[in-house]
Amino acid sequence: MDTVFIDAPAWLDAFLAARGPCATDEDRMRLAIDLSRENVVRGTGGPFGAAVFAEGSDRPVAVGVNSVVRLRNAMLHAEVTALMHAEQRVRSFTLHRYGLPRHELYTSCEPCAMCLGAALWSGVVRIVCGATRDDAESLGFDEGPVFPASYFYLEERGIEIVTGVLREEAAAVLRAYAEKGGPVYNG
Amino acid sequence: MDTVFIDAPAWLDAFLAARGPCATDEDRMRLAIDLSRENVVRGTGGPFGAAVFAEGSDRPVAVGVNSVVRLRNAMLHAEVTALMHAEQRVRSFTLHRYGLPRHELYTSCEPCAMCLGAALWSGVVRIVCGATRDDAESLGFDEGPVFPASYFYLEERGIEIVTGVLREEAAAVLRAYAEKGGPVYNG
Repeated sequence: MDTVFIDAPAWLDAFLAARGPCATDEDRMRLAIDLSRENVVRGTGGPFGAAVFAEGSDRPVAVGVNSVVRLRNAMLHAEVTALMHAEQRVRSFTLHRYGLPRHELYTSCEPCAMCLGAALWSGVVRIVCGATRDDAESLGFDEGPVFPASYFYLEERGIEIVTGVLREEAAAVLRAYAEKGGPVYNG
Repeated sequence: MDTVFIDAPAWLDAFLAARGPCATDEDRMRLAIDLSRENVVRGTGGPFGAAVFAEGSDRPVAVGVNSVVRLRNAMLHAEVTALMHAEQRVRSFTLHRYGLPRHELYTSCEPCAMCLGAALWSGVVRIVCGATRDDAESLGFDEGPVFPASYFYLEERGIEIVTGVLREEAAAVLRAYAEKGGPVYNG
């Protein structure tokens, strides 16, 4: 079988290089949101962005943008993409390993069922979300089978989940995308 | 950011080439199970295999084996890997598109939360499972936040789910792996 390649859009490295440090939750969420907006502006995908940070660092280990249509791959939501790049960067199938700092996932929108599972397996110890499930679903995006018990399942396993950080900024990108008539590929 | 490469283990193409046609559910499940066993025997990953078939074809569109440890990527469960390769093969981010036949996913073990979400987004219309969640969890594998409502969510969207096909054969591979002391990377 042929190799599957997952690469970032061409604008991403320059975008990151021009970026200042991200010290706080708000700084890091703004990076995820700005990625979601840039992905739409550049025409490289849906309105979703994510970033993985190591505790104590103000630069992301890796970031991701929704790449479903660009790379013809339904699994390349922003979170999955960011987590795959982060694990490659640290050369480990888990970000929660002895000798590594703790890692956190910032996502411009609450994760779908697939991405919540991916976050669990990735070894991040904290998930910080911007826009809510309702924000996404009101525009026709499906979040899949995520229930209150799903979040509880992760919390029981030591993962802290924070929602609604810069929610309005994040939701505004979703609304702008819908108004522009961008494709809702899983609606 | 660097490109992430997802390639099949070196033995896979020859394994598939030597394989006869798979016409029935049992034939197709046996392919998924044999992939799960071969992955352990060859030392290329955990005891999980999956295959995507187009309706009316007796050859898989793509297959996958658990590649978490080999490719240092927590998301590369057998199902995600098979679905990514299948979408690349048909050059579409959904397998449920006008002009394409219907596609079905065969997996040697009931999907975890991530893979159930991935199957939903992939556009397969049928998911056929071998070993059960209990079979996997009794050996220490975590399946994540999957609930009866999760299956119902997919069924409501037109996806047929069949469980327990060749369950004993599939579960035997899981047990052999555990007895051999293979790593349970998400336990």
